[in-house]
Amino acid sequence: MRLPDAFYDRVQAELVASLAEQGLDGLLVTTPGDIAYLAGFFYAVTERPVYLWIGADGDRFCLMPRLDHEYASAQGIQAEIVTYFEYPGVVTPEASLAAELVRRGRASARIGFAPALSTGALTTLRGVLPGADWSSTSVVGRMRRTKHPEEIRFHRQAGVICDEMLAAGRTLIEDALKSGGPLPTEGGLARHVIGYGTEAMYTRFDHVIYTTKLAGGLVYTGPNSARPHGLPSSRRLAIGDTLILSLGAAVASRFVESERTFVIGEPTTEQESYFAVALRAQEIGVAGMTLGRTCAEVNAECLDVIRDAGMGGYIQHRQGHGIGIAQHEAPWIEDGDGSLLEADMVLSSEPGIYVPGHGGYRISDSVLTTIHGPERLTHYPRSLEQNVIPV
Amino acid sequence: MRLPDAFYDRVQAELVASLAEQGLDGLLVTTPGDIAYLAGFFYAVTERPVYLWIGADGDRFCLMPRLDHEYASAQGIQAEIVTYFEYPGVVTPEASLAAELVRRGRASARIGFAPALSTGALTTLRGVLPGADWSSTSVVGRMRRTKHPEEIRFHRQAGVICDEMLAAGRTLIEDALKSGGPLPTEGGLARHVIGYGTEAMYTRFDHVIYTTKLAGGLVYTGPNSARPHGLPSSRRLAIGDTLILSLGAAVASRFVESERTFVIGEPTTEQESYFAVALRAQEIGVAGMTLGRTCAEVNAECLDVIRDAGMGGYIQHRQGHGIGIAQHEAPWIEDGDGSLLEADMVLSSEPGIYVPGHGGYRISDSVLTTIHGPERLTHYPRSLEQNVIPV
Repeated sequence: MRLPDAFYDRVQAELVASLAEQGLDGLLVTTPGDIAYLAGFFYAVTERPVYLWIGADGDRFCLMPRLDHEYASAQGIQAEIVTYFEYPGVVTPEASLAAELVRRGRASARIGFAPALSTGALTTLRGVLPGADWSSTSVVGRMRRTKHPEEIRFHRQAGVICDEMLAAGRTLIEDALKSGGPLPTEGGLARHVIGYGTEAMYTRFDHVIYTTKLAGGLVYTGPNSARPHGLPSSRRLAIGDTLILSLGAAVASRFVESERTFVIGEPTTEQESYFAVALRAQEIGVAGMTLGRTCAEVNAECLDVIRDAGMGGYIQHRQGHGIGIAQHEAPWIEDGDGSLLEADMVLSSEPGIYVPGHGGYRISDSVLTTIHGPERLTHYPRSLEQNVIPV
Repeated sequence: MRLPDAFYDRVQAELVASLAEQGLDGLLVTTPGDIAYLAGFFYAVTERPVYLWIGADGDRFCLMPRLDHEYASAQGIQAEIVTYFEYPGVVTPEASLAAELVRRGRASARIGFAPALSTGALTTLRGVLPGADWSSTSVVGRMRRTKHPEEIRFHRQAGVICDEMLAAGRTLIEDALKSGGPLPTEGGLARHVIGYGTEAMYTRFDHVIYTTKLAGGLVYTGPNSARPHGLPSSRRLAIGDTLILSLGAAVASRFVESERTFVIGEPTTEQESYFAVALRAQEIGVAGMTLGRTCAEVNAECLDVIRDAGMGGYIQHRQGHGIGIAQHEAPWIEDGDGSLLEADMVLSSEPGIYVPGHGGYRISDSVLTTIHGPERLTHYPRSLEQNVIPV
């Protein structure tokens, strides 16, 4: 589960070139996702800050708490390791960082930072490096929008596991139905599929690494499926329910999402009609993900399928979003994002129909954009016939 | 799992009084923990921002994505709900916020924000509300340092579940030993205890809510236990191992942590000596948590036990930290934190000894500070005799 050195060499070289263009002497990288992306260090995030410096001259070091030293080293971090003892520290981590930058002749450097840096941290940094010139740059965010072949390989592997997690969820329900035992609860189903995905990671990979999680699952049953954002509950699945399994998995923190809608027992006409529109919107939404179109245009075309079916009042969210080291990242397949689709983006297509008191319908695949057109990375069957669970 | 309205009335009144003192017209609350604390809204965190406004005049509203509306309402959020459709939006969430503040006569308000606000968000906010005056304030962070009786009740309930999770982990190991089957892996043990804790939450409480998680577990076996911060691995527990179970649980997002060190089979003299020092440091560390002392002083006294035993080279971190809605929050029981212990803080006492290549020893309780002295909220047995798992 490790990206090759060649990958890190390439992204660091790309960054260094961009820093020179922007007139920056270096970038101070402060978020776990960007640090994992640029230097291959994956760590447990706490209040103890980690700062990665990448100079326009190629100089690189990573300041971290001492208790991460051995672990960073074992991961083969692509930067020199410098440590501070603890947080908050008699000498603050920021003072240690400043001392290191001064030692490297960077006391009055032009330093870039990402917009995610907190106002509190920036104030502290300005205080300890008064001669430096600070400016915000979204360069790493832009770089992360398109994926390298080594990353796409991990996205594909995550897709395989995500498909298997869906199958594991279905099997749990079928087994309960066969045995005549109680059907699983939302929480029980979620834990089962997450357990399956996590176990698969540990079985298949030697050195398991992640930034936020390995596998995740949201399970919405019956009327709860009409609330796309509630926290899971102890509600037990019932015959007649619409069920949404909304699953994610990440290999080396390269995520995919896969979501399917199931019906427990013979579907009603109402269920059939909502399902058909959700499925059609998703198909149109995926097919629309071709290079050179705007995210807004793709989104509108997808959601128009729902609006044209007279179900626009049941829309609660956009078509989708980019996926990478973070489960949600730019670009956004939404009206407000005018950026163009490029090759090698990984995007979700997940239009939803949410009927209050009745249920929700959402089918999602992770889609790779290519010069040959959109390619799905998740393949679990989508049709109603295939996703009716007979009772 | 819901705090009573009286709690929210009290914290909001306290905040309003503080805003007036600071000369602020209102506070823009932007982090999930602070929003949960002040208004009782617990939600799935994504890129879609949630902004809670609390005016010095008591006016309150919470701007959120439309898909959270029903869920916030069901939770009885203590603020008027205002929604925007989606992220990033043709009209940005920040523009919607600005419009709402202007509508309420706040176009040129003096607005406080927490240091955790990102530089990117602040830049956007300054752009959409050019007449406002923005200043950083740590008022909510300060308020969260001491706990209210309604919160302490939930911390205690979390302590009970955390103790049970430790017992569930031990039972899993004992059952494997009895059956002669393979011992569990780190990942397997972690999933088992987290599953136990999560299930307990759903069984005991009607409306389960959280900000980051319900139950968490880090499991370090054998030589891995000498690395206090590595991600869990597929290593299987072995006879002779030192084992650290580092568990956490949260009821209504009020966390506790409980950590125990076990030895699988008859301990060696080496294991006995490290264990004895870790236990003594933890006892001294807890006993030292009396009102009016500084965090730095308590920390030094605790870690001196390890240093005085000649094991100072095996220290990798401070004694502990505050616990609340976040698993780690101020104050910090560390040399760099000179703040005084007050009544009704919840703190971890978790000194550790990490011997490279051999193993780690860490025992942690969550401790409530009171006028009668420190009170442990976690009670699982601590002694070596009680935590040897016979083979």
